[in-house]
Formats: sequence, structure tokens, C-alpha cells
Amino acid sequence: MAESRPQSLHPGDQPSDASVPKVVVSRLSLYLRELQRLEAAGQQTISSGQLGTLLGFSDAQVRKDLGFFGQFGYPGVGYRCDELIRAMRDILGTNQSWNVVMVGVGNLGQALLGYRGFGRQNFTIVAAFDADPAKVGQMVRGLMVQPLEQLSETVREQHVRLGMIVVPAERAQEVADRLVAAGVEGIVNFAPVTLNLPPHVQNVGVDLAIELEQLSFAVTSKLVKLAEPSPSPAE
Amino acid sequence: MAESRPQSLHPGDQPSDASVPKVVVSRLSLYLRELQRLEAAGQQTISSGQLGTLLGFSDAQVRKDLGFFGQFGYPGVGYRCDELIRAMRDILGTNQSWNVVMVGVGNLGQALLGYRGFGRQNFTIVAAFDADPAKVGQMVRGLMVQPLEQLSETVREQHVRLGMIVVPAERAQEVADRLVAAGVEGIVNFAPVTLNLPPHVQNVGVDLAIELEQLSFAVTSKLVKLAEPSPSPAE
Repeated sequence: MAESRPQSLHPGDQPSDASVPKVVVSRLSLYLRELQRLEAAGQQTISSGQLGTLLGFSDAQVRKDLGFFGQFGYPGVGYRCDELIRAMRDILGTNQSWNVVMVGVGNLGQALLGYRGFGRQNFTIVAAFDADPAKVGQMVRGLMVQPLEQLSETVREQHVRLGMIVVPAERAQEVADRLVAAGVEGIVNFAPVTLNLPPHVQNVGVDLAIELEQLSFAVTSKLVKLAEPSPSPAE
Repeated sequence: MAESRPQSLHPGDQPSDASVPKVVVSRLSLYLRELQRLEAAGQQTISSGQLGTLLGFSDAQVRKDLGFFGQFGYPGVGYRCDELIRAMRDILGTNQSWNVVMVGVGNLGQALLGYRGFGRQNFTIVAAFDADPAKVGQMVRGLMVQPLEQLSETVREQHVRLGMIVVPAERAQEVADRLVAAGVEGIVNFAPVTLNLPPHVQNVGVDLAIELEQLSFAVTSKLVKLAEPSPSPAE
């Protein structure tokens, strides 16, 4: 099973990264989390229908998503949780460990340094940086805060490929430029701004309001069925 | 345009919330963010193709997603950004303001209290709670930390409908039970555990490792094309 992965990572003739839609990749993370939960609860196999039901997708959707990456599962049995977890991690790249640097050790940065969910998926924050001289040299969650001038050297020495930006919006682009110059290949940006990055650097923005928005939809649409909504302000 | 929304929120005959796939709702948040960015940059109209390109979807996908909620846009012109933003907010429920309570004022809680992205989407954290007597009574980002015993009263008095759980995993279920008892209708859970909740309470879990995982995929799959990958550990 796993052997068929490298050849099938980009099926078809399209040479670009676009051959696997972004949304499919984001669903892989959801599948992986659900499988990890099931495995921790002792479940050994699961069907596409069960997996879909747990996540609110159809079984066809689950099979189609996984089909982008290869052939998984056994007719009549479904998927073996451990095999599918290994395959998902293989695809997502988290079967190997990743060294990550964080820039910005304010409240959010400190919280992220203590976040146990990163290690569970094979990400290790190996160094933390801050522009504030008062913070440099302090120990935060076992890491000594380094000055930004140290970034390139640390990235090279520690084989760091990913960076997290946890600074105020107005500093984010400058930090991003430094991370790119240091050779980082991907950036998670917690600052509420869009970064200008060269095309070879991958970039994911985090918007913590999205989850609240999903809730307000769910709560609102439930209410729509309970009571006649008042008319929207007309245009 | 907006008037057609209530009738079309749940198209078809399916009476359940499942009539709009969860993933479509999550894409609405992406559309809204992109439209807000474009509008701030001065753009007045956009086609489904342009919007799709910016987010990595096909134009057909964009039209299909929006089609769940009504008819938007004008033939040959596309969408008016301001109209579509208003319609998206109408659908997501963020055309009205939402009062939110937060439980847990550790580093992450404090960071979230200072997060400007919430207010921009019409969410206001009106009260913060903590079980730690040493934190109760302290001022954090303009809010006085309240004891958990105060939760029900505050939720009622301040018309709070959403809650955020930002406590350690082992305390999360207890806090969730308290929020449910207080009458909260939706919960965003930052603790890395699955909550047991009654079906009428909406629930979104936040896993901060997912963004790193999406990056590691992007970086890995790029490398797959540059070099022959070493064989995966065979099963």
C-alpha cells in the first residue's frame, strides 16, 4: 500500500501542485485526526461510509479524496486504521519530524510553545525569536529567546524548514522577509495580514475568528427553522 | 438578493442541517475573507473565476457553493464585492453581533482576548472566567476575570450564545457541561479533546497543528517532484 504512494501523489498528467485540490489536502488532516481518535479508542478498521458519517461527508467523497493518493483499504473490510494513519502521515509529510522556528513570544507565542498538539503530529519548535531586547535571553517553555539577527544561523544549523509568525500585523512582513532569507520553505502566519512571499515559499494564514463564524452559522441556521427570521436590511 | 436568503438557506426537501455540507460553510468563511481583502483594496466587482483562482477553486465550485444559499451576481459583471460580503455575513450570521464568553485565561486565553480578528467579524468577548482563585478578580485586557460560579448569571444577563473553552484538556468537559447548563448554544473548543455535548449545542474544535500539517504537505509534495523519494517503510 505505502509503496504505491510516491507514484500516485500527483496522478494524471498535470505537472503542477494544483493537481491535488487544496481542500482535499485540508480534509486529509480531518481524516487523520478522526483515525487517530478511533485508533486510540481501540477501533481497528473503518469503512469509508463510517469515516464519512463521522466527519459529515459522503462515502463517495471519502473514497474520491483518498483516491487522489493511491489505493487504500480492502473490499468488504474497509480501511485498517493503523495503515491509513501511516499512509496519511506519509502523504502529509508528518511521518518525518519537522523542526520549526517561532518568531514572537507574546501571549500567543508562549501559548503555542506550550501547545501539545504540535509534538503529536511530529512538529518541534526548536527555537523562539523576538525583536524585543527585554525578551531576548529569557527562558520561555524551555527555550531561550533569541534575537532576530540569530535567525539565519539557527535555521541553517537546526535544519529548520518551517516558521511561525506570531508578531503584530505591522511587523509580520519584515519577519516573513527574514524567514525567507534564512531559507525557510513554509510559513504559518498568525498575524492578520496577507504576506508577500516568493512563489517557492508555502504560506498558510490562521484566522482564529473562522471557528466562531462556523458556530454562528450553525446556531443561526438552526434558528431559521425555529422562527421566521426578521427581514434582512434591503439593498 | 438578500430577501431570498431565508427561503433558500436549506434548499431541497431535506429538513436537517446536513442539507448544506459543512465544508461548504467553511468555504464561505474563505470567500468572505478574500472579499473583505479585495474590498479594502478598492476592488468593486469580481467574477466567480477570479474568486476561485484566488482561493484555488474552480469557478464552477464557487458558483455551486454560493448556489446553496441563493442567486448572487450579475451575468457578464460577476459579483459586487459589497453585496456579496453583506450576503455572506447574512448567511454566516455575522451581520449581527455576538456576545462570547471565554473560560480559561492562561497564555492562550489572554492572547485570544487581545485578538483583533474577532471584533472585525462581529464577535465580542464580554466576559472571561477562570477556576483559579488567584486569577479571579484580576483585570485581563479590560475584563475582570470572574469565578466559574458566575457563569450562568453572566450568560443570561449579557445574552451570551457562544463560549470558548481555553482550559487544559482534563478540565474541558467539566467546563463544557457548565457552558451547556448556562444555556450557551455553541462552543469553540481549543482543548485537544473531543467533548460530549447534547445534540442541540454546536461544537467546533480547533487544532492548531493542522496549519503546520498543510505546510508540510506542500513542502513535501514539492520535493517529491524534485528528487526521487526514499521508499516508505514497508508494511
